[in-house]
Amino acid sequence: MTLQERSHLRTQFEHELFERVLPFWERHSPDPIHGGYYNNLDRDGTVYDTTKHIWLVARQVWMFSKLFNTVAQRANWFDLAHSGMTFLQTHALRPDGRVYFALAEDGRPLYQQRKIFTECFYAMALAEYGRAAGKTHLVTKAQHMVESIWSWAYDWSKVGRPALSGAPPTQMLAVPMMLLNLVDEVMPEVDSDAEVDDCFRRIRLHVQGGKVFENVAPDGTRLAGPAGRLINPGHAIEAGWFLQHLAQHLGREDMQALARTMVRDSHALGWDPDNGGLYYFLDADGYSPVQLEWSMKLWWPHCEAMYAHLLNYAQTRYPEDLTAFRAVHQYILDYFVDTEHGEWYGYLDREGRVTHRFKGGPYKGCFHVPRALWLCWKLLGDWPARNPAR
Amino acid sequence: MTLQERSHLRTQFEHELFERVLPFWERHSPDPIHGGYYNNLDRDGTVYDTTKHIWLVARQVWMFSKLFNTVAQRANWFDLAHSGMTFLQTHALRPDGRVYFALAEDGRPLYQQRKIFTECFYAMALAEYGRAAGKTHLVTKAQHMVESIWSWAYDWSKVGRPALSGAPPTQMLAVPMMLLNLVDEVMPEVDSDAEVDDCFRRIRLHVQGGKVFENVAPDGTRLAGPAGRLINPGHAIEAGWFLQHLAQHLGREDMQALARTMVRDSHALGWDPDNGGLYYFLDADGYSPVQLEWSMKLWWPHCEAMYAHLLNYAQTRYPEDLTAFRAVHQYILDYFVDTEHGEWYGYLDREGRVTHRFKGGPYKGCFHVPRALWLCWKLLGDWPARNPAR
Repeated sequence: MTLQERSHLRTQFEHELFERVLPFWERHSPDPIHGGYYNNLDRDGTVYDTTKHIWLVARQVWMFSKLFNTVAQRANWFDLAHSGMTFLQTHALRPDGRVYFALAEDGRPLYQQRKIFTECFYAMALAEYGRAAGKTHLVTKAQHMVESIWSWAYDWSKVGRPALSGAPPTQMLAVPMMLLNLVDEVMPEVDSDAEVDDCFRRIRLHVQGGKVFENVAPDGTRLAGPAGRLINPGHAIEAGWFLQHLAQHLGREDMQALARTMVRDSHALGWDPDNGGLYYFLDADGYSPVQLEWSMKLWWPHCEAMYAHLLNYAQTRYPEDLTAFRAVHQYILDYFVDTEHGEWYGYLDREGRVTHRFKGGPYKGCFHVPRALWLCWKLLGDWPARNPAR
Repeated sequence: MTLQERSHLRTQFEHELFERVLPFWERHSPDPIHGGYYNNLDRDGTVYDTTKHIWLVARQVWMFSKLFNTVAQRANWFDLAHSGMTFLQTHALRPDGRVYFALAEDGRPLYQQRKIFTECFYAMALAEYGRAAGKTHLVTKAQHMVESIWSWAYDWSKVGRPALSGAPPTQMLAVPMMLLNLVDEVMPEVDSDAEVDDCFRRIRLHVQGGKVFENVAPDGTRLAGPAGRLINPGHAIEAGWFLQHLAQHLGREDMQALARTMVRDSHALGWDPDNGGLYYFLDADGYSPVQLEWSMKLWWPHCEAMYAHLLNYAQTRYPEDLTAFRAVHQYILDYFVDTEHGEWYGYLDREGRVTHRFKGGPYKGCFHVPRALWLCWKLLGDWPARNPAR
C-alpha cells in the first residue's frame, strides 16, 4: 500500500465515521424525555421500537466516551455518553450487580438474560465514561464489576442458567475473548498477567487444524454435535484482533502468530467464493448449520474482518493480508453502506441483497461500524514502520 | 374438484404418507440402545446430532399412536410409540410435573425451557399413547397434566420466567390455540365448554382488520413495537384449522366463519407474489421484521395451509379455497418434497432454494408433514356432502 493510498483511505474512513455514521446516531438515537438512547432505528432513523437494549446502550456510551478520550474533547460526545451512562446507572444495574438485558424506554425492566455479556458491556461503558468524566471511582467500580464477571464466567449457574447433567461441560470462545477485551479496556493499569495468560491458554484450545471452533470442552477436546462443529468466522476474526492487541502489548510473539492465523484461516473458510462476503455460521464437517440465518452476510463480521486484515497487513506487509482487507472493504462499499441515510445496513442475504432495512436493532447499534472505522482510521494514521524481522 | 381428482389426490397423499414419509422415520429415527428416537436426521437419515428434543419425541409418539388408533393397528407403529413414550416417562418428566426441552441420547437432562409447550406435547403424546395401549389411567394422567398447564398458561412466572415491570402484559396467540388443541386431543370426553369458550374469546382478540396478530394485550388492545406488529401467517392458519375443528364439533357457526377468515386473510397477506410460498414472519405496518429468517419459506406453514385450505374448500366449495389449496400443494411438490430420500426439506430461502438439507432438527421431526398428509388423506376419504345453506 502506497503512502498515497493510505492517506486516501484514511480520509475515506474519517469522512465515513465523522460525517455519515456518527451523525446518524447523534441525530436519531437520543431520548430527550427519559435520557439515554433508542437503539431500534429504521433506515432513516425513525424509532420503530422504543425498547432499550442494554448491550447497545452500553456500547454507545463506550463509543462516545472513547472518541472523547482519544479523538477530541467534543462537548456533544461527552453529553451523549453522560446521558447514556446516567440512564444505565439509574435503571439497568440491579442491586445484586447483575444488569438487565432490555428496559422499557422509561427504564422499567423488560428482560434479564441468563448470560454475562450485558454486564461486560456495562463495565466497559462505566470505565470509559469514568475516564471521560475524570471520575476514577467509576473506573474502580467497573474493575470490581469485572472481578464479579470473572467469578461467573465459567459457571453460568451463577447467573441463573441451571447446569444439567446431560449438557457436556463446554467452553465458549466468547468467554475468554470477552474477558481479554475487558482486561484491555477496563483494567489497563491493573496487573492482570495471570488472567491474560489464562485467556491465552483457553483461546488456544479453540484453534484446531486451521479452524476456530466456537465451543470445545474445557480441556480442548472437540465436542459432538452441531455446537461442537460450529464455526462463526466473524467471531473468530474478532477474537483474533482482540488477542493481537494484548499479544502486541505484552510482546508475546507466539500469541501474535496465533492471532494472525485465526484471522487468515477464518477468512479463508468463511468467505463465500460465489457471492463474496463472510458467512455467518458454518459446520466444520459440512453438515447444514442448524441456525436458520447461517448463510446471511451480517455487517459485524465484515467490520471485524476489515480491521483485522488491515492490522495484520500493517504488521506483516503480507500481500495476502492486503488482498483480504481490500476484498472485505470493497464488499462493504458495495453492499452495506447506505449512501442516502448514513450508517450501514446490517443484514444481507447470501447474494448480498438487503433483507432488513433497519440501521439499529436488538443486536445492532452505535458500535461495530464506528469502532471498526475508528480503529482503521487510527491505524492508518499511526502506521508502523516496516519490521524487517518478519 | 371432481370425484376423479379427489380420488387421485387421495392416492397421492396416501403414497406420500405411507411410502415416503413415515418410512423415513421408521427406518432412521429409532434409538435401539437407549430407546426413543433421534430427531436430528440429515437428508439421508444420518444422525447428525444425538440430542433428543422433546417437542419432537413427544410429537412422534403422538403421530404413531394416532395412526395406530385411527388408521390401522400395525404392531410396528405401536412399538415405536411405546418405545418413545417409555423414554419420555423415564427421562423427560420431572417430579414437579415440568418436562425437559432436550435430553442427551441416554436420557440425561440437557435443557429446560421457561415455556409451557414441551408439557403440552407430552400430554398429547401420553393421551394418544394411553388410548393405543388401552391404558385409561394414562389418559387420565394426561388430563391432569392439561389442568396444570392451564394453571400456568397465562402466567409464565409459574414456569420460571420472571415477570418484569417494563414488559407489557401480553397474550400470545400460541397459548389459547395450543390449549384448544389440547382440549380437542386430550379431553374429548371431558366437559370443557367453559374452557373452549375462553379460548374462542381469546383467539378472537388476535383477529383485527383482516390480520391475525401474534401478540396482543389481554384485553385485545394492540401492543407497540415489533412484537405487537408481528404476523406469522402459518401460525395463524394453523390456529384457524384448530379453531375450525372445535367450532364444527360444537356447531358454533360464528367461530367457523372466524376460522375461515383467519386462514384466507393470512394466506393473502403471507403469500409471496413474486416467488410463491408463505413468508415466515411479517410486520403488520411494513417495517422489517426483526427475525433474521423472516423471508424464508418453512415447511410447516405450508403443511398447515395445505390442510386448512382443503378443509375450507370441503365445507364451502368456494373456488378461491381450492385455488389456494392448489397453489400451496404445487409449491410443496416443487420445492419441499425430496423424491430421493423421502420426507421433506424444512427450510428454503425466499426464492425457494433449499438452505438446510436436514429432514429433522431441533424444531422439525415426525410431525407436521405426516399430520398434514394424514389430515388431507382422511378429509378426502370422508368428503362432506355439499351444504346448500352455505
